[in-house]
Amino acid sequence: MKNYLIFLIALFLLSASSLFAQNADSVQIAKIFSTALKDNEAHHALYDLCKNSGKRISGSPLADTAVIHMSHWLKKWGADTVWLQECLVPHWVRGEKEQAKIISSALKINESVPVCALGMSIGTPDDGLKAGVIEVHGMGELKNLNPIDIKGKIVFYNGAMPPETIFTFNAYGHTVGQRWAGAMEAAKYGAVGVVVRSVASHIDSYPHTGSMGYNDTIQKIPAVAISTEAAEKLSAALIKDPQLLFWFKSSCKILPDVKSHNVIAEIKGTKYPNEVIVIGGHLDAWDMAEGAHDDGAGVVHSMEVIRLFKVLGIKPERTIRVVLFMNEENGTRGAKAYAEWAKKSGEKHIAAIESDAGGFTPRGFTLDCSDAEKYFVRSKFSPVLSYFGVGDFSRDGGGADVGYLRDICPLISDLSPDSQRYFDHHHSALDVFEEVNDRELEMGAAAVASFVYLLDKYGNGMERNNGGDE
Amino acid sequence: MKNYLIFLIALFLLSASSLFAQNADSVQIAKIFSTALKDNEAHHALYDLCKNSGKRISGSPLADTAVIHMSHWLKKWGADTVWLQECLVPHWVRGEKEQAKIISSALKINESVPVCALGMSIGTPDDGLKAGVIEVHGMGELKNLNPIDIKGKIVFYNGAMPPETIFTFNAYGHTVGQRWAGAMEAAKYGAVGVVVRSVASHIDSYPHTGSMGYNDTIQKIPAVAISTEAAEKLSAALIKDPQLLFWFKSSCKILPDVKSHNVIAEIKGTKYPNEVIVIGGHLDAWDMAEGAHDDGAGVVHSMEVIRLFKVLGIKPERTIRVVLFMNEENGTRGAKAYAEWAKKSGEKHIAAIESDAGGFTPRGFTLDCSDAEKYFVRSKFSPVLSYFGVGDFSRDGGGADVGYLRDICPLISDLSPDSQRYFDHHHSALDVFEEVNDRELEMGAAAVASFVYLLDKYGNGMERNNGGDE
Repeated sequence: MKNYLIFLIALFLLSASSLFAQNADSVQIAKIFSTALKDNEAHHALYDLCKNSGKRISGSPLADTAVIHMSHWLKKWGADTVWLQECLVPHWVRGEKEQAKIISSALKINESVPVCALGMSIGTPDDGLKAGVIEVHGMGELKNLNPIDIKGKIVFYNGAMPPETIFTFNAYGHTVGQRWAGAMEAAKYGAVGVVVRSVASHIDSYPHTGSMGYNDTIQKIPAVAISTEAAEKLSAALIKDPQLLFWFKSSCKILPDVKSHNVIAEIKGTKYPNEVIVIGGHLDAWDMAEGAHDDGAGVVHSMEVIRLFKVLGIKPERTIRVVLFMNEENGTRGAKAYAEWAKKSGEKHIAAIESDAGGFTPRGFTLDCSDAEKYFVRSKFSPVLSYFGVGDFSRDGGGADVGYLRDICPLISDLSPDSQRYFDHHHSALDVFEEVNDRELEMGAAAVASFVYLLDKYGNGMERNNGGDE
Repeated sequence: MKNYLIFLIALFLLSASSLFAQNADSVQIAKIFSTALKDNEAHHALYDLCKNSGKRISGSPLADTAVIHMSHWLKKWGADTVWLQECLVPHWVRGEKEQAKIISSALKINESVPVCALGMSIGTPDDGLKAGVIEVHGMGELKNLNPIDIKGKIVFYNGAMPPETIFTFNAYGHTVGQRWAGAMEAAKYGAVGVVVRSVASHIDSYPHTGSMGYNDTIQKIPAVAISTEAAEKLSAALIKDPQLLFWFKSSCKILPDVKSHNVIAEIKGTKYPNEVIVIGGHLDAWDMAEGAHDDGAGVVHSMEVIRLFKVLGIKPERTIRVVLFMNEENGTRGAKAYAEWAKKSGEKHIAAIESDAGGFTPRGFTLDCSDAEKYFVRSKFSPVLSYFGVGDFSRDGGGADVGYLRDICPLISDLSPDSQRYFDHHHSALDVFEEVNDRELEMGAAAVASFVYLLDKYGNGMERNNGGDE
């Protein structure tokens, strides 16, 4: 009976101390959210990034402007150090605005349609490229065609994002292959160009660009994205006149690599300065608009962690490092440069969090780590973060940029905002500052800062637990 | 040992059968979401409601149009019965567009500012109302003032929604009192009119209307909402010139009550037709725009339950009844009429779900029911709905309209969408069709239909459990 009583008392003390720690965490996290929402600073920084360095594609003068401006914000917000990390980046330029037409004498059509070159594509000859069209809905269909029907033609990839997929990034993943590898595949069969349906959630008149790749052993052919609306139109016209012609003209090209930079800022850890938590978004953006959601939001989410810690007087035990990666869109050269440096730095990376899924209301984080760490994060962090609506750690994966740290960092994670609207704007002229809701943006910043706060305090589940509530 | 083995086998069979039922539910709910997202029908119905009966305030011809059009959609979508339930509604009319000015000879200001009459307010005299201004931030401050400073003045309520409150409906609840009761309170001290800061999340130039009330024993004085931007301007001007004058003119008035209708549609239950699950939104909307989020979204969410059940061949055991309530905004007369009828109907209401929080991505449902039912719903429904992102049943409360059924219905619930953007549009000229994202809207419809599917199959935790997985 006595033992039983001691056991009960011990149990009470244990759960009480755990409860008090959790309450203290809730109070701190409430302050983080409250400060982010009241101050509106993330929104101001995003305005600067979008309006003063909108089309900041890698290698462009606007990308340099973004590096300078975001460094200033980080200094202003009190980072202990801010430095630029050099990297060579590809320099693709779009050239003149692209043109395209559907031409059918049978249907009496000679109609302009909106297209844009895919990133890293070569351009067409000066007078454009005109050819017959063969429509497919993905690369798999090419194999079932008679190669003679492809040779000399423009392949029209008309695969649409499946609307029934709730998490739209999965729908994107399902569809984006034809954009990335469609030109390579079509060229194998002698196609002269490709027109790819924009990877977008809606039927509208905006073409959405994005990266594509070539294989040096296969003929390079020009590739453009066509708006979803025009894709539907082209498909309907092809049914009536399979002999119609498509003409498009693009003058994009790849220039020699140029020097660029990651922006790196940190708050040095008070107790374990050699243990690092990385938070990052990417500074570059496609040249269609302002890169507000992709990835202006991720940039300011990351920077805001430093501001919130400084404003609230949170002195992290580990080093909190913000990395604004250059060149995520067409090369991830910044991510590679940082990873290479980090591997030689002698530091211990304990977690790396990326925000590159837009400035929408945050719901949680993905996890790419061991099962033991997943259990640790889900059981320990999810309850306290759920109160703020950001406790969903159910998805796996993470990190176009921070993924390069996988070898040296046991926990990789992405902020996971609501995904329903992301592919309305993504890589198109619609990705502008005005499409970002300030509250949603600031909630994302607060979510990242809160996760970092917990990781700093309790570790990642594999590291030494340095106190906290245990 | 043998007993232990039997116990283990029994445990396995129990959990397996429960697991199979849950899997079958997941498959059915996946179909509900997939159908809602692919068909896009909710979005089409919302377009009709918004564009053909935008300013459908109770008593207006457009409210009648909404009744007729939504009845047609419900018939087209295959409801077993569609009928109109009569109710008398208040008939407030706005009259001419309101005007207002800040006038200060000291500051050389004579500036027009955007205002709109609060719903149910009386109008000003024909040449408007001009008086000095006394600023407060809520009704509590009035008591601390010298009554002589209020007499003959316009009271300017400038309390703002607290930005740090994450769930914006709580911030609204915190602030809306001055709009509802501000005129009554100010009149007690001899004020001649009130100007109320719009209850809105952002600083912009749009006034947001909303209901206000009078007390028959107190002098009725006119009340207008002022845009948040103009409220800031007026406040700043008052600091410089406390003697400035405010002038406003409104010609709104209350006409005699008129006959109107709730629209009611149902699918009769195959096994327990006398047990009813009600789903509702409100048909009426303020006359500032199109009532797209408030509450066009709720109307089509509710109607879509019928369509989804019909398209998917789901034959409910209980009766599924959609009630499109008239007059939620300024009287809830439709809700009262339905509740009165329901109490006499001899039916058993087992649950009543309302959607009146916008067409944003759904996250879950509120619950107003016994603890036993909360436990039942949270433990049994939340896991399967969480997979679709709509498993949050943590909030209490529910139902401006369905709340009138509380006496006869043990489970009252509201759809709970993401709340960050709701008060950008609410009751203002910004609440238009174009501000509703179709995917987010359709996810809401699917969430409501899925909850109804589970309630129909498993009951509400207090009723007989008619089979299912037990």
